[in-house]
Amino acid sequence: MPKFNAAVEILAAPPIPTVFSWGKSYDGRNGPMIDLSQAVPGYPAHPEMLRLLGDCAASSAYTGYGPIEGDARLREVYGAHLADVYGAALGAENVHITAGCNQAFTCAAITVAGAGDTVLMSDPYYFNQETTLAMLGVKVRLAPCNPDNGFLPDLATLEAAIKPDVRALALVSPNNPTGAVYPPELLSAIFDLCRARGIWLILDETYRDFLPEAGQRPHDLFNKPDWQETLIGLYSFSKSFCIPGHRLGAITAGAAVVDQIAKVMDNVQICPPRSAQAAVADALPILAEWREQNRMEIALRATALKETMEGLNGWSIGALGAYFAFIRHPFAERTSAEVAERLAKETGILCLPGSYFGPGQERYLRFAFANADSDTIRLLRDRLQRISSTS
Amino acid sequence: MPKFNAAVEILAAPPIPTVFSWGKSYDGRNGPMIDLSQAVPGYPAHPEMLRLLGDCAASSAYTGYGPIEGDARLREVYGAHLADVYGAALGAENVHITAGCNQAFTCAAITVAGAGDTVLMSDPYYFNQETTLAMLGVKVRLAPCNPDNGFLPDLATLEAAIKPDVRALALVSPNNPTGAVYPPELLSAIFDLCRARGIWLILDETYRDFLPEAGQRPHDLFNKPDWQETLIGLYSFSKSFCIPGHRLGAITAGAAVVDQIAKVMDNVQICPPRSAQAAVADALPILAEWREQNRMEIALRATALKETMEGLNGWSIGALGAYFAFIRHPFAERTSAEVAERLAKETGILCLPGSYFGPGQERYLRFAFANADSDTIRLLRDRLQRISSTS
Repeated sequence: MPKFNAAVEILAAPPIPTVFSWGKSYDGRNGPMIDLSQAVPGYPAHPEMLRLLGDCAASSAYTGYGPIEGDARLREVYGAHLADVYGAALGAENVHITAGCNQAFTCAAITVAGAGDTVLMSDPYYFNQETTLAMLGVKVRLAPCNPDNGFLPDLATLEAAIKPDVRALALVSPNNPTGAVYPPELLSAIFDLCRARGIWLILDETYRDFLPEAGQRPHDLFNKPDWQETLIGLYSFSKSFCIPGHRLGAITAGAAVVDQIAKVMDNVQICPPRSAQAAVADALPILAEWREQNRMEIALRATALKETMEGLNGWSIGALGAYFAFIRHPFAERTSAEVAERLAKETGILCLPGSYFGPGQERYLRFAFANADSDTIRLLRDRLQRISSTS
Repeated sequence: MPKFNAAVEILAAPPIPTVFSWGKSYDGRNGPMIDLSQAVPGYPAHPEMLRLLGDCAASSAYTGYGPIEGDARLREVYGAHLADVYGAALGAENVHITAGCNQAFTCAAITVAGAGDTVLMSDPYYFNQETTLAMLGVKVRLAPCNPDNGFLPDLATLEAAIKPDVRALALVSPNNPTGAVYPPELLSAIFDLCRARGIWLILDETYRDFLPEAGQRPHDLFNKPDWQETLIGLYSFSKSFCIPGHRLGAITAGAAVVDQIAKVMDNVQICPPRSAQAAVADALPILAEWREQNRMEIALRATALKETMEGLNGWSIGALGAYFAFIRHPFAERTSAEVAERLAKETGILCLPGSYFGPGQERYLRFAFANADSDTIRLLRDRLQRISSTS
């Protein structure tokens, strides 16, 4: 057989299907499986969202190709939404619509880094960002986050890791996998560092709509002078609108960056799916109240998880925030994959091993707690206790 | 500003928007613009297709993530369709669904070639394939097609171009931009060459459903022993079902290749858009008759164009086949972009310059004649004559 690209061939199989396969071996002894694996909203899309998606998909207005950067109306509506969220002068010209946030990252990465360049990431990282860079031949340098500081990135560590080969720093806030919400002052200092060192800051804010407090501004970076020359923001409509299957995300960047990204997007998929863009443009203002209710609901789930984990022998919370918690398990002698596999097969808890998120994370598991309601979350206590006592 | 990836920065702006901007300067002096630029069907999607798209998009069954490789039902249905089209033992395990055929090419390219490797293409080529390879740092080597042989690839030229650095040969049949339908015997010989030399053959068959003759089998490559170890087929649902805005394409490959491609697709977009997959799975068998009628209609348009160009002073047909014609213009002293710009602004004909498709194509223009009905195509004669006489 002819050769594959070695950078692809050495990648492990995608992790989520592997974890699902563990779940299939669970015999149901403790009741139904509690699925905290993939970050998917545990509640359905709003009926109005479904109506809009259906109406737009049934329309011949959206069967043709659209602009590479996204439909003008969604760029307008989302640009205005960004201006509101960040209190900044953002508009349509700063928006590039994508088919989901993985694609937003892939296109941003190709735009700023080629094979042989280096991108700096935190450890832990979001695994698809690491595998994307690896498959592109882009080198990855890791800056470890300190577990004792809630897994926030450490400024001095980042600074030391920015060598001349680094083209960009890729961060996720609220973080995947830890859930940690990076404080605005920390993000501001990191931005200043990136600007001073002449590298891009790619900031994935997929979970931005799930900050613990109402009306909280995520950060002030889009108000910095010349932010366009440092910052590339990423976002997903999947989580906030409960429509991951429709594949819709966005990049926020300076107009000159959008022009470069459009060249990449034209190659990768010509234009984002059109009917979903039209539907979300309508839904964005209409569903503001509903999204706020979901934010509050997920904050309640975070509280439920905090209470559930309290005083649980050997288990502790490494970090807990928007959507995710990074949970420290008690089995020092086992790998996180072994623990996650046992949790799936023997207790009916599906979660991701810490090792999927970086080399330093064997003692941790990622719980995507937003997937489960508070009552279900409370069932975790008994199941976690059970496995501790049988190990 | 920090650096962009030089491989992206040196790419020209995407070509289609540039051509559209020429069209905006046309004053309408010869009647409405005749748009032969982008390959989009000149007739609407079937009402049943729209109904299915609407029903599926309105359903909560397709809001969540699906399998990376595509939904099982579409893979089954399309796999059975492939078995029928090629008379070969193909099935779901040979199918990877993508968001359009550009994405299919991007993912296939990343799977087989990394930065520094070489992919062999024909000249002329489909421009997005060339820019995709360029942005990935993959080197491109061109094998010129002979205009005197209807722009078919030349086996000896290909053979000489396959040096040890070549990982794959990328071809398009029916061809974009020329419309040339590669004969099965030629494809068979090219396949044998690729197999003998240990390189992949990536064959884009986006226009497969528009072959001039009814029930014509495109080629027998999927019946070759061990075809899985050489061939990667690409396809788009955009043209056949008139739904480019819904972004749906497919890769046909051996199961081992599908496994590698899935790693890339997971990074690029996790899964293809789901509701469109469900709709097309239903539509594929239902709309067989309608697609056959469209094939016949486009064959009539090809005949209309042939008649229209006959004896037109200085103009001639370089190639004409499924969907496209590659037209030789009379202006030896002008670039193809100058001619196309003048055609747009002064005569109201929108088409693409030959130079977009390769360095050797300045004397040609691509007419996507499938976009226009036969009556409209006949209007070209007067407009083309007019510009010849005023130059």
